[in-house]
Amino acid sequence: MQVSLVCTDHNRGGVSRSTEERLNHRQNANSPNTGTRNKFRAVAMVARSLGQLTVQSQPTSSDQSIRTGMKYRNLGKSGLRMAEQLVCLAYENGINLFDTAEVYAAGKERLHDGKTATAIIQLWNVFFTHRAETERGLSRKHIIEGLKASLERLQLEYVDVVFANRPDPNTPMEETVRAMTHVINQGMAMYWGTSRWSPMEIMEAYSVARQFNQIPPICEQAEYHMFQREKVEVQLPELFHKIGVGAMTWSPLACGIISGKYDSGVPPYSRASLKGYQWLKDKILSEEGRRQQAKLKELQAIAERLGCTLPQLAIAWCLRNEGVSSVLLGASNTDQLMENIAAIQVLPKLSSSITHEVDSILGNKPYSKKDYRS
Amino acid sequence: MQVSLVCTDHNRGGVSRSTEERLNHRQNANSPNTGTRNKFRAVAMVARSLGQLTVQSQPTSSDQSIRTGMKYRNLGKSGLRMAEQLVCLAYENGINLFDTAEVYAAGKERLHDGKTATAIIQLWNVFFTHRAETERGLSRKHIIEGLKASLERLQLEYVDVVFANRPDPNTPMEETVRAMTHVINQGMAMYWGTSRWSPMEIMEAYSVARQFNQIPPICEQAEYHMFQREKVEVQLPELFHKIGVGAMTWSPLACGIISGKYDSGVPPYSRASLKGYQWLKDKILSEEGRRQQAKLKELQAIAERLGCTLPQLAIAWCLRNEGVSSVLLGASNTDQLMENIAAIQVLPKLSSSITHEVDSILGNKPYSKKDYRS
Amino acid sequence: MQVSLVCTDHNRGGVSRSTEERLNHRQNANSPNTGTRNKFRAVAMVARSLGQLTVQSQPTSSDQSIRTGMKYRNLGKSGLRMAEQLVCLAYENGINLFDTAEVYAAGKERLHDGKTATAIIQLWNVFFTHRAETERGLSRKHIIEGLKASLERLQLEYVDVVFANRPDPNTPMEETVRAMTHVINQGMAMYWGTSRWSPMEIMEAYSVARQFNQIPPICEQAEYHMFQREKVEVQLPELFHKIGVGAMTWSPLACGIISGKYDSGVPPYSRASLKGYQWLKDKILSEEGRRQQAKLKELQAIAERLGCTLPQLAIAWCLRNEGVSSVLLGASNTDQLMENIAAIQVLPKLSSSITHEVDSILGNKPYSKKDYRS
Amino acid sequence: MQVSLVCTDHNRGGVSRSTEERLNHRQNANSPNTGTRNKFRAVAMVARSLGQLTVQSQPTSSDQSIRTGMKYRNLGKSGLRMAEQLVCLAYENGINLFDTAEVYAAGKERLHDGKTATAIIQLWNVFFTHRAETERGLSRKHIIEGLKASLERLQLEYVDVVFANRPDPNTPMEETVRAMTHVINQGMAMYWGTSRWSPMEIMEAYSVARQFNQIPPICEQAEYHMFQREKVEVQLPELFHKIGVGAMTWSPLACGIISGKYDSGVPPYSRASLKGYQWLKDKILSEEGRRQQAKLKELQAIAERLGCTLPQLAIAWCLRNEGVSSVLLGASNTDQLMENIAAIQVLPKLSSSITHEVDSILGNKPYSKKDYRS
Repeated sequence: MQVSLVCTDHNRGGVSRSTEERLNHRQNANSPNTGTRNKFRAVAMVARSLGQLTVQSQPTSSDQSIRTGMKYRNLGKSGLRMAEQLVCLAYENGINLFDTAEVYAAGKERLHDGKTATAIIQLWNVFFTHRAETERGLSRKHIIEGLKASLERLQLEYVDVVFANRPDPNTPMEETVRAMTHVINQGMAMYWGTSRWSPMEIMEAYSVARQFNQIPPICEQAEYHMFQREKVEVQLPELFHKIGVGAMTWSPLACGIISGKYDSGVPPYSRASLKGYQWLKDKILSEEGRRQQAKLKELQAIAERLGCTLPQLAIAWCLRNEGVSSVLLGASNTDQLMENIAAIQVLPKLSSSITHEVDSILGNKPYSKKDYRS
Repeated sequence: MQVSLVCTDHNRGGVSRSTEERLNHRQNANSPNTGTRNKFRAVAMVARSLGQLTVQSQPTSSDQSIRTGMKYRNLGKSGLRMAEQLVCLAYENGINLFDTAEVYAAGKERLHDGKTATAIIQLWNVFFTHRAETERGLSRKHIIEGLKASLERLQLEYVDVVFANRPDPNTPMEETVRAMTHVINQGMAMYWGTSRWSPMEIMEAYSVARQFNQIPPICEQAEYHMFQREKVEVQLPELFHKIGVGAMTWSPLACGIISGKYDSGVPPYSRASLKGYQWLKDKILSEEGRRQQAKLKELQAIAERLGCTLPQLAIAWCLRNEGVSSVLLGASNTDQLMENIAAIQVLPKLSSSITHEVDSILGNKPYSKKDYRS
Repeated sequence: MQVSLVCTDHNRGGVSRSTEERLNHRQNANSPNTGTRNKFRAVAMVARSLGQLTVQSQPTSSDQSIRTGMKYRNLGKSGLRMAEQLVCLAYENGINLFDTAEVYAAGKERLHDGKTATAIIQLWNVFFTHRAETERGLSRKHIIEGLKASLERLQLEYVDVVFANRPDPNTPMEETVRAMTHVINQGMAMYWGTSRWSPMEIMEAYSVARQFNQIPPICEQAEYHMFQREKVEVQLPELFHKIGVGAMTWSPLACGIISGKYDSGVPPYSRASLKGYQWLKDKILSEEGRRQQAKLKELQAIAERLGCTLPQLAIAWCLRNEGVSSVLLGASNTDQLMENIAAIQVLPKLSSSITHEVDSILGNKPYSKKDYRS
Repeated sequence: MQVSLVCTDHNRGGVSRSTEERLNHRQNANSPNTGTRNKFRAVAMVARSLGQLTVQSQPTSSDQSIRTGMKYRNLGKSGLRMAEQLVCLAYENGINLFDTAEVYAAGKERLHDGKTATAIIQLWNVFFTHRAETERGLSRKHIIEGLKASLERLQLEYVDVVFANRPDPNTPMEETVRAMTHVINQGMAMYWGTSRWSPMEIMEAYSVARQFNQIPPICEQAEYHMFQREKVEVQLPELFHKIGVGAMTWSPLACGIISGKYDSGVPPYSRASLKGYQWLKDKILSEEGRRQQAKLKELQAIAERLGCTLPQLAIAWCLRNEGVSSVLLGASNTDQLMENIAAIQVLPKLSSSITHEVDSILGNKPYSKKDYRS
């Protein structure tokens, strides 16, 4: 279970100065320009270890994530372990480096999606534009140049995982796989993953990596929430079982659909009312959208019984899936952040009977022949 | 469709200062010495995106080629996309860095051939001499040293494509392929290609790359114009179909033969009248040359019907070939540059009946068993 | 035969200043920050060559280990030769850089285990914590980051051997082997080895290295002393014979059990009386522990006949095994260091009849079908 | 045909200052510390191109070796071409960097053997000691450290060829081949070769390189003179034919035996009279040595007929072998250098009848089944 949250709040919560300094100490090692880097790395590291963060005063401890005694779960079959209870605290200067290329928001200064401020820097974050992400493609040239520009902007020596966002039909898979292996071999990244790829495309990448003795991808980022379950609950576990590719999920609140905000239409100032979100508005107001809102009312009742909000239930519901390495989510202010973090406390309340009840309401539990959970 | 033009004009046309600054901003990232680099990179980038360049005032946009909304075509099956309407504006300081080793010109200061000032730096550009290009060969030593010296001179961190000019019978293919893979792995180049290689030689390079798990070449630079069609129209499409090696063509005006200048012999001050161009003069004055001039007169009539010049028709005719990734051409002054650029507007007028008419006049359309155009 | 000793004494013994300066001269070559590096490298180099160190005044000689005319033994089948008589002199500043993550000691300032101050830097030395070593695992991320941090701390450009401490069931073997090959290819290490791995795990690493054309491990660090013989005397020679993996051993005194200190229980201020060493105390006071102490009394008599102490006999007994590349041991003060060094002089006295006598007392000589000693 | 000579003369002969400056200009490109580097590289470059060096005033020419219009011969089947008429002019500061580890001389300041001051830096040059060369071995550690130290000392970014001097039975061939490939991949060397290896050992290196997709060796350095012909005239041509490994030869005067100095015993102040050269003295004074001196008297007569000295005849005789890429020889003063250089003029006089006559006198022409000369 793993949560990634982000806030833009300028108070760094309970992380004491000395903690940050120790983190900086660790991160400065190979970085000539450490100002921004420290900030970001601190975000990443804290993100991996917070949970019931109780900063201990061990001056020699160089790794926050170990000190907090978190339990770990592997990202895919790789050895990249991440804290099971992930929380991302926002740091003043660092935050605006992680704006996303996606068109989630009206303003430039606001951070809108948790995907951008987690430990994982996505390749297309770099370009900082409102163009379609697939525009740049996955050529060797764009993968290398994009990542270099990203590292330069973020003042990082390397990222942990570089993601190939959406498959690029115009680039041979061999070129993409060789380029990903190249940036890893050059020390610019530790691992690479895919985002929004089909299982067949991921298998092709894996197969090409094997054919040319290159490094295979480590995980897939996939949309996962109460109304979209098939890929994460059936397809990715099968992939994990076969080739060790793990799952990282995003959009646990279905772009805000599972927020309770839209139970009686689309109110002004909500995301779906923003220019450029007509598609979201249409989706909500469609017949399917109205059916979803009806189900959400029933789920709201469960949430109340559990003493939590509907979004908290939805996030905890994602976290209950043990095949998921990390749940990415966004927050645009401190309150939202704190509400989302609290979903971790809801998790233990998700008994099998509650889960069964949720499944009955949703009526969309996919059928899987095998159970790949260890 | 792709055009590469070059001019030595010191006015940088319609590219505003702020555009250049943004380009510089992008290019400076990893370059310690950015003076010349910016200039050159700007050339390359503008070259890829100009077209109906309408500089938009998006300060966060980091990639000119995306902002202009160009359509892209892949270079071979690789993912290196280049703007379909390529124009190369000359920058004052940068230009004299791209002189070619070829013996096209009498003076040293002038830039004579478009091949030298495009986004693609040719390996033999580096040596800046009047010796035969094959003199240096394609040994590991010369490929690496030549490219390093080139990068140093041009103040570039890497080139996009490094070309192996003419096959070198004295160097084992394995050595050349390993050296090309080496410079790519070292980050000195993104891709490598061949120039003036036979399809069999390219196949050998590809096969050796596969044998030793090295990186295969991405494209071949070949001469292509109305009087030389076989390699580009028949042989290279087959290669592209088999191993994904694309075609980049040069000399669309056949060393100036298709200029209209030679329709009544070789006038003074023309290229064919220069010392060292006796071979060109001989070619023009030969029986075959006279037959070509007769055909050009007929083509001149078509050009007039289309409202363009003969060179524009010839360039547009090259561009009509969808199997060609890039058409390289030269220009020694602004007027010539502008005339050549205008060939892009002629392209839509090349209906199939016009193309058929041109083929009839030329009488040299090669027969291809298969049509590899997608 | 090879001994590694360490002391924390601030006098650097017989190594003259000029020796150190020459060593520094050699080591500074590629190191921007040479202060600490010199110190450590000097330790490593002297460690490899001391023996009857007679510092010769050849100003041009750049390699201490050659000058002393030591005989060498290969580490596994690799070409990394190390002095047969290895002694580690402690240098003031360098020593406290090599503290180990293991929980051998009560104080932080003291150096407790020879493993940490030899020429071989162990990966887990870096983390400098009291957490379980396996906590960090052998992911690509941790291997690279850990080694980088270590090199930064020690101001070294590279280590000779990087060890993977304890197998990590959570990380695919391919990832560990690729990461080890990566740090070697990046110049951060010369070789890699394992520590506390089973022969089957080492074989798997070797097999994976062969499968993906990566670099196989060079040696295994294993516990070896009079009361633990099977792995070093039977299993590792077989591995060496098959795949060239050598043996380096640690704990020749069985965590102090073979010191004579515990023959009548656990005295105060001994290691076994320290907090956190309850397991050692339990072991000593167990029935098996008492049987061992009884045998040690018999061995004490042999030691006296040979004119040495029991620990010297125990160390010499480890050294007698020609399949062992290096015997690692610790010393917490100069006297202990000097006593341990003197074990080298005992070695020639270990005749086959003495060895036979020791085997009879121990009663645990393992049966090996083959004799792999060359 | 290729000659490498060296002198310690402090006058740099006919190379004008402007030549040197241009050479420096080329060499400084990637070198932070250029003082010494320039000197050495200049040696290397001039060495490759001298011949009838006529310094041309082409300020843009960046490669001396091309400017002089030398004819080239490949080193093995590799593409590393070297000037057919090689001469090494000594530069003041550079010279004492190339002292050899071999025990040819009594004094340290003098340069004794041409092998050390050619364009080819031998690995064991680095160590600058009088120990046996095989002492250090061919482990990954020693190859990398030795080459790094050498590059540091010589202020070079890379050497053209790194030689593995004498096979090392203690190091697995895989380790040596991987280490050689590593230094090439790291940009520290362009090629690697062997020295004094048997054809079978070279074949093993080649085979291991093929097995693990590493880079195979490019050439073998072998002793070759009138009294030692088998390896260079029979074995190496076969190797070249099979795997493209070329031959570079040393000791054309048989350690001075073919100098005319020893025709009546060993005079004082000759090399054979030096301390440490007892073996040479013994060899000369042996029965075989006397027979050789008798033959040299006959050859002296031929030399006189050709109007040259005996050493010149001997060098020209080595050069006549077209299977030899380079003839390495030494000179301890300017006169000797000039005499040796003049051997190039003798070469055209070596008609087949003269060669036949020499063969008759020597009586040791090896029998080769095949003729591998192209």
